[in-house]
Amino acid sequence: MSIVRTNTPRADRAAVDRLANFGVATVHEAQGRTGLLAPGMRPIYAGARIAGTAVTVSLPPCDNWMIHVAVEQCREGDVLVVAPTSYSDAGYFGELLGCSLQARGVRGLVIDAGVRDVRDLTAMAFPVWSKVISAQGTVKATLGSVNVPVVCAGALVHPGDVIVADDDGVCVVPRSRAMKVAEASAAREAKEAKSRARLKAGELGLDIYDMRETLARLGLEYRDGSAED
Amino acid sequence: MSIVRTNTPRADRAAVDRLANFGVATVHEAQGRTGLLAPGMRPIYAGARIAGTAVTVSLPPCDNWMIHVAVEQCREGDVLVVAPTSYSDAGYFGELLGCSLQARGVRGLVIDAGVRDVRDLTAMAFPVWSKVISAQGTVKATLGSVNVPVVCAGALVHPGDVIVADDDGVCVVPRSRAMKVAEASAAREAKEAKSRARLKAGELGLDIYDMRETLARLGLEYRDGSAED
Amino acid sequence: MSIVRTNTPRADRAAVDRLANFGVATVHEAQGRTGLLAPGMRPIYAGARIAGTAVTVSLPPCDNWMIHVAVEQCREGDVLVVAPTSYSDAGYFGELLGCSLQARGVRGLVIDAGVRDVRDLTAMAFPVWSKVISAQGTVKATLGSVNVPVVCAGALVHPGDVIVADDDGVCVVPRSRAMKVAEASAAREAKEAKSRARLKAGELGLDIYDMRETLARLGLEYRDGSAED
Amino acid sequence: MSIVRTNTPRADRAAVDRLANFGVATVHEAQGRTGLLAPGMRPIYAGARIAGTAVTVSLPPCDNWMIHVAVEQCREGDVLVVAPTSYSDAGYFGELLGCSLQARGVRGLVIDAGVRDVRDLTAMAFPVWSKVISAQGTVKATLGSVNVPVVCAGALVHPGDVIVADDDGVCVVPRSRAMKVAEASAAREAKEAKSRARLKAGELGLDIYDMRETLARLGLEYRDGSAED
Amino acid sequence: MSIVRTNTPRADRAAVDRLANFGVATVHEAQGRTGLLAPGMRPIYAGARIAGTAVTVSLPPCDNWMIHVAVEQCREGDVLVVAPTSYSDAGYFGELLGCSLQARGVRGLVIDAGVRDVRDLTAMAFPVWSKVISAQGTVKATLGSVNVPVVCAGALVHPGDVIVADDDGVCVVPRSRAMKVAEASAAREAKEAKSRARLKAGELGLDIYDMRETLARLGLEYRDGSAED
Amino acid sequence: MSIVRTNTPRADRAAVDRLANFGVATVHEAQGRTGLLAPGMRPIYAGARIAGTAVTVSLPPCDNWMIHVAVEQCREGDVLVVAPTSYSDAGYFGELLGCSLQARGVRGLVIDAGVRDVRDLTAMAFPVWSKVISAQGTVKATLGSVNVPVVCAGALVHPGDVIVADDDGVCVVPRSRAMKVAEASAAREAKEAKSRARLKAGELGLDIYDMRETLARLGLEYRDGSAED
Repeated sequence: MSIVRTNTPRADRAAVDRLANFGVATVHEAQGRTGLLAPGMRPIYAGARIAGTAVTVSLPPCDNWMIHVAVEQCREGDVLVVAPTSYSDAGYFGELLGCSLQARGVRGLVIDAGVRDVRDLTAMAFPVWSKVISAQGTVKATLGSVNVPVVCAGALVHPGDVIVADDDGVCVVPRSRAMKVAEASAAREAKEAKSRARLKAGELGLDIYDMRETLARLGLEYRDGSAED
Repeated sequence: MSIVRTNTPRADRAAVDRLANFGVATVHEAQGRTGLLAPGMRPIYAGARIAGTAVTVSLPPCDNWMIHVAVEQCREGDVLVVAPTSYSDAGYFGELLGCSLQARGVRGLVIDAGVRDVRDLTAMAFPVWSKVISAQGTVKATLGSVNVPVVCAGALVHPGDVIVADDDGVCVVPRSRAMKVAEASAAREAKEAKSRARLKAGELGLDIYDMRETLARLGLEYRDGSAED
Repeated sequence: MSIVRTNTPRADRAAVDRLANFGVATVHEAQGRTGLLAPGMRPIYAGARIAGTAVTVSLPPCDNWMIHVAVEQCREGDVLVVAPTSYSDAGYFGELLGCSLQARGVRGLVIDAGVRDVRDLTAMAFPVWSKVISAQGTVKATLGSVNVPVVCAGALVHPGDVIVADDDGVCVVPRSRAMKVAEASAAREAKEAKSRARLKAGELGLDIYDMRETLARLGLEYRDGSAED
Repeated sequence: MSIVRTNTPRADRAAVDRLANFGVATVHEAQGRTGLLAPGMRPIYAGARIAGTAVTVSLPPCDNWMIHVAVEQCREGDVLVVAPTSYSDAGYFGELLGCSLQARGVRGLVIDAGVRDVRDLTAMAFPVWSKVISAQGTVKATLGSVNVPVVCAGALVHPGDVIVADDDGVCVVPRSRAMKVAEASAAREAKEAKSRARLKAGELGLDIYDMRETLARLGLEYRDGSAED
Repeated sequence: MSIVRTNTPRADRAAVDRLANFGVATVHEAQGRTGLLAPGMRPIYAGARIAGTAVTVSLPPCDNWMIHVAVEQCREGDVLVVAPTSYSDAGYFGELLGCSLQARGVRGLVIDAGVRDVRDLTAMAFPVWSKVISAQGTVKATLGSVNVPVVCAGALVHPGDVIVADDDGVCVVPRSRAMKVAEASAAREAKEAKSRARLKAGELGLDIYDMRETLARLGLEYRDGSAED
Repeated sequence: MSIVRTNTPRADRAAVDRLANFGVATVHEAQGRTGLLAPGMRPIYAGARIAGTAVTVSLPPCDNWMIHVAVEQCREGDVLVVAPTSYSDAGYFGELLGCSLQARGVRGLVIDAGVRDVRDLTAMAFPVWSKVISAQGTVKATLGSVNVPVVCAGALVHPGDVIVADDDGVCVVPRSRAMKVAEASAAREAKEAKSRARLKAGELGLDIYDMRETLARLGLEYRDGSAED
């Protein structure tokens, strides 16, 4: 059964844009260390940093037909999330599809498979997170579904969830929690800013985070190693 | 039996130079999706794009002696293609061999193993596609062969075939088909240029490629997802 | 038993700084092809090149507590070397710890696991060699040890050993051999400089290294391949 | 937030027991090729074939504390499904936990990580599907959750879903679809029994499944290859 | 262009049956260490040992249609060799196809992808060498070719070549060299039989193969290690 | 510099034989979770369980010459431990070397590379733990060393250390600690025997190990999930 769900609700735009200010590591921590895609998902070029709402695609391995179907469901501010139903490292997506998505205001692509034309995609600043770069083409023969829940690189993604992606990888934030996670991310950053200043000044984490006593209680021993030779 | 075949015929230079204008993805499609090396073959720096005629080397694992033998067989416009007879991630090739090949007009190296001195090779703009970067040296103890057919990263390469390589990976074009594939590549690019203009203008692939009817016939269903919450 | 060895001796600073002039491939060759870490250890950005003395950390998988303990043991000129006791691709180290180490004059991090905040670490020019980039956080629950011998990415590292790292990977030089290896590296470079000049001038390695006779004796055959077609 | 959900509903026992008659490949096909765990999930011994209802465990990497918590939630006919929140190949489960589960009538374990004591587990006929065998122990330091939805080896598993596992791997059937999938599996097997008889008698799939015309229409060409030599 | 080559010549049956007496390691050595498929190709059960003539299949990833086409081209004594054109770990082949091949006298399957129904295939003693076991099904949508040269798991296989397979893996012997390689294998085995008797009697390879002098000349040093403590 | 250290001391035989009674998981725990080789080290057949004293071999990749040298250094009760200096999956060891070692009373082989003739080695009950099975042969061209410390599959092994291996993998026990670790293993087994009896009787680990209070204090919550549907 192949379906395309249209007009699916998106996470609140203000929350999404706020999340775009934070790195993946911060967001991941802020929502209790959930939602991270497998670390094999790498950006095709360094420096991209996005947040957007997921349009999801579940498709057969080595068949990119449903990506064409999904383009129509994309709006400004979306991120396309593509998950084949079986492992594949073929190149499902290239520069032409990138032009099409960019024309609709899509902010990037996350694909648990391969991408090609990376030179062109880089030149046009369309960011892609994929597990491989591959020129291997795909067919257009079998249906899949758009805007159904998918497991992408080990993480569950629902349509409308927020995708945050940067040089560290990709994280998904459930639609209903977007604003809360944005706030928690901001709180975390504020706290880290204070630690950062102290660490740069030479203070130790051992002292800032008050670790010495617990370490000693658990039995950590210090021994002079200077005599060794 | 270890042999060096000398003066092996090369693909037509005009065809090679024409192929250099196209990306690997285009060439791979243009010859019917054949000849692609495994996607694990990655360039040591971004942006290189070459086409050249293959001088092939079959050598024992962790032994780079035959590369020295192969250098002598290289001419201006060649690409060296190195395939160990057993899996290895050692570094068979470094900056000195790069200097030697560059002095002979060789356009790059494709090796189903490791390369080292990548900082220097990048500085001198000698492009290499390899499956790993490794400082591990090799010995010079056992013979291999030069300019025999080799399987390199899963693809069959004959001496004189055209190697096309860019940020997407590496593709081999059989010597006798070089001009035909160049022509097919040009045709493909011309066709894509038209699609690109329409896609950038916001038209959908669904319409440009006339997919709607077939999708419907195969049973693709659209459902309003706006009520979800 | 968890211990922190303090004031462990470091390799001679002059030797370390001399080793910093050479690439990993050179140093690895100069010490008889020993001490190389597995090639999966990659820098988070291109172009970094360091040498420093190892402060070692053995820690439980997915627990970065001991890194905080280790920071205190670091001095100017050190390199932190982190080895979990079981395979893990989580992100044990981020920008805050980078600030802390940089404030103490540490030259870089080598970790047989994951790192995060790579955008920030790149911006602040704190080099890291890791086997993966991962935003996945770790806990602070279980003790480990600092400045004990560790196996990191397949290589044995003692505290105070010299770590040399560049775009080719990471190599460890035993503390007591640092100056000898620096000298052998210099000798190797001097010798290579001569070969380089001749190779750039178009001479062949076959002649420079006098290989032809041995190759012929072992049975290498040359055959004219021009007739093929 | 760490929770244990108690008394979660299970799939209908009659449906589960009926599913136990079919292989994983059949069940996977019968539910439209969904629910298969990654093929890296292998049984520790050949010949085991089970179906049971999932008790799910989400736990921190290298920490098996929550397995002890989960045991209490298990009943006769269950299968324990364990998914660490980050990649790990440590051995979370051994013979003692196997005794504990077997005493409660649990039918097997599915773990996206490592298992140990496989010799003992085999001797006591407690089947385990895991991605690795590893003697590496884990700690008991950090909480996780029991009977929450988990992504295990790439597949989404809810508590109470049916787990079907055999030498081909592991498949999950949603709780509410268990009887329907059992019926579809039976229908599929009946159909295959007919094909089997004909194939064994020497008939060709080309004829049984009426493929010749379609193949010819798509352009499949037959050429006599006997002259080659 | 999709073609099926019919009546392609097979290697001499007497040579094939003679090769069936030798292990893969012996045959691989006897033909100069060529023709070995990648070691990832493993048998689904231990103890199978076959030799047969290759019927080759090149097919699109995740599409097993051409296997049905290939069955018709198989004769008694053949081995089916299947190579997808892009990496895939789906299960292209199961028990029904096994019945069909076995009915035609086919001796086994070699597939650079996945197989399923391994319990049934084992029970019916139809041996398969594959890189993975996977219940994931495939489609029947796109053409490929039968009896064309294929690269399978890194080795070039022509139709009619001899496939030798056992617990060590899979090796291909070119059709025209089959008898010569069988003879060389027999000679190798005869020689090894003599060594075996001497080694079992306690003689050392160092003496049997006369290695001591060469080792000493190359600089191997013996040192008494008994004082160590 | 290639050396063979002769007459290196072995761990106490009584301690070794006592360790042979325990599984790898037990021994690994008993010595504080150290010394485990990477889980990729798998036995070629199920059911083998050995302990013996290490004779170590460091050798160049794809060159097994030093194994012949090492055989002479082996005595009754030893286990040969082979570590190439660079990654390799070739088959360094086969049945003939197995005969030679078995004639000397060697108890098994541990090799961080490939092994071949596994059918014969299984038939003669010579156990091997390797990371791969591969028929790919090696050369005899370059020296290495015998009875020097090696890193094998991520663990440091000194000559004379105890190697314990079973279906769970391989563990190394430092020579000087052999008897202490044997005693700790026995103590651990005795303790586990008591737990086993209680677990089999249906008691829960939660109660036997007194975990409930700590779990509650850390915040574990129980919620009734029966209403879900």
